[in-house]
Amino acid sequence: MKISRPIGIFDSGMGGLTVVKEVIRYLPDEDIVYFGDTARVPYGPKSKDTIIRFSIENILFLLRHEVKMIIIACNTSSSVALSIVEQNFKVPIMGVITPGALEAVRLTKNKRIGVIGTRTTVKSGAYEQQILRAAPGMKVYSVACPLFVPLVEEGWVKTPITREIVQTYLAPLKTRGVDTVVLGCTHYPLLKTMIQEVMGKGVTLVDSARQVARQARIILEQEQLLADKRKGRREAVRFFVSDEPENFALNGQRFLGFPLRNVTKEPHV
Amino acid sequence: MKISRPIGIFDSGMGGLTVVKEVIRYLPDEDIVYFGDTARVPYGPKSKDTIIRFSIENILFLLRHEVKMIIIACNTSSSVALSIVEQNFKVPIMGVITPGALEAVRLTKNKRIGVIGTRTTVKSGAYEQQILRAAPGMKVYSVACPLFVPLVEEGWVKTPITREIVQTYLAPLKTRGVDTVVLGCTHYPLLKTMIQEVMGKGVTLVDSARQVARQARIILEQEQLLADKRKGRREAVRFFVSDEPENFALNGQRFLGFPLRNVTKEPHV
Repeated sequence: MKISRPIGIFDSGMGGLTVVKEVIRYLPDEDIVYFGDTARVPYGPKSKDTIIRFSIENILFLLRHEVKMIIIACNTSSSVALSIVEQNFKVPIMGVITPGALEAVRLTKNKRIGVIGTRTTVKSGAYEQQILRAAPGMKVYSVACPLFVPLVEEGWVKTPITREIVQTYLAPLKTRGVDTVVLGCTHYPLLKTMIQEVMGKGVTLVDSARQVARQARIILEQEQLLADKRKGRREAVRFFVSDEPENFALNGQRFLGFPLRNVTKEPHV
Repeated sequence: MKISRPIGIFDSGMGGLTVVKEVIRYLPDEDIVYFGDTARVPYGPKSKDTIIRFSIENILFLLRHEVKMIIIACNTSSSVALSIVEQNFKVPIMGVITPGALEAVRLTKNKRIGVIGTRTTVKSGAYEQQILRAAPGMKVYSVACPLFVPLVEEGWVKTPITREIVQTYLAPLKTRGVDTVVLGCTHYPLLKTMIQEVMGKGVTLVDSARQVARQARIILEQEQLLADKRKGRREAVRFFVSDEPENFALNGQRFLGFPLRNVTKEPHV
C-alpha cells in the first residue's frame, strides 16, 4: 500500500481555514498540514519583499512535513509571492488568484467584474492580470477594503456599523455596475451575507476558496498524486501556528465550521 | 568632550512615533534610535510569549546601537514584556504603562479611571495594577478597542463611522462615570479629538507618550546620563524598520508632525 503525503496549506493566519474547509470537501481522502503565521499576521498591509520572505519560510516549513503540493491560501501572498516561489521550488504550488479569476470570467454576463481585497493584493493587480489574460475584453474594478479583516476578527460581521463600512467600500463597484465580485481575501467569506445584501441579489460573489480546492483536485489527478480511499476515522488535518495555539483553536471554528484539534505552536519564524 | 550615547525607542510599528515626538520635546539634545517592527505589526492581538520574544529581539537590536536607555513605546509590549526584560538587561528600560497610570491617578478627581487599549494590553491588567499600586482606592474600568488601530491606519480619524465605533466602545466608560481616560495605545492620540467629543469636555484624556518622555528626563538626570547641549543642526533621530521604509517615512509624518528622513530597513527578525 502506497503511503500518501499530505497537502500543505499556508496562510498569514486563520483566514486560510476557509480553504481547508473546501479542500476537505473536495478531497476528503487527503491529509492536510496547515500553517498559520499568526505571530506575523496580517500580511495585507506589508511590502512585497517582506511577504515573499515570509512565504518562502512557510514553504520551507511545510516541506519539512514532506507535502506533495502546496496551496497558498492567502490572497496577499498569492498575489505577490506565487510567481517567484513557483519558479524556485519543485513541489507544485498553487495560489488562490487564478482559480478565483477564472471563475469570475466564467460567471460574469456583463463582463464587468469587481475585485475586493487587502491593500497589497489590490495594488499588485494580480486578479486583474489573470482575468484579462483569460478574457481580454473584461472590465475589472478593484477596491481595497483594509477594515474588513479587523472587523471579521472582532466578530462584527452583522452589525450596522459593519454594514456602513461595507457600503462605503463597495459604493464604487455599485456605480460601475459589476455583476460579479471576487472575494479576494480569505476573511471575506465571513462577510458574504452582508456583502451580498449591499451589492444586491443580481450580483454573484466568487469565493476563491472553493475554486482552489477544485483546481487542486484536478492537478492531483493529473499528477497521479491522489491519496487512497480513506479507511476509518483518523486525524486528517494537523494545524501549526507561529503564535499560541489556544486562540487559533478557539476562533478557528468560525472559519472551518467544526472544532479544531491538533493545533501546535511552531515558531519557525 | 564626552560622547553621548543615544536613547533607544521601539514599537510594534509607527505608533511609537508619538513617543519620539514627546522625547524630542523634553530632551531636545538627545540622539534617538527608533525601531518599528513593521514586518510583524500589530502586537496587540498576539500572545504574551510571542510579544516577549519580539521585544527581546528588538532590545538586542537597539543594544547594537549602544543605547544608554530603552523606552518601550508600545503599550502592549510594555504591559506584558517589561517586567521580564527589565530583570534581565543592564540597560535601564522604561515602559509607557507606569507613567500613564501615575498621571491618571494625579488627574482624577472622582477616583474613577477608564483605560482603553488593545486586547492584550487590557487582558494583562497592567494599567489597573499600576493605578491600584499607586492609589488603592481607585476604581478602574478597562475596555479593549481593537478597531481603533486599523481605523487610524486607514486614516479614518474624523468619519461618522469612526464616531459610531468610538461611541460603541466607550459607552461602558460613560456609564461608569469616569472623569479620566488613559489612551493606552500609541495610536490613540490620533483619535484624541473624537474621543474627547464622545466622552465630553469634563473628561481628561491621558496621553502616556508625554508622561514617558518626562519620566525619561528624570531618570537620565538621576543617572547623570543627559547629553551635552546640542551644538548646531544635525541628524538626531535614526529610524529602523523591519518592513520597507517608504511607507513608514510617508505615513510617519502624521504621528511625528514633521517629515522623516533616515529610515532604514533592518529585518533583524
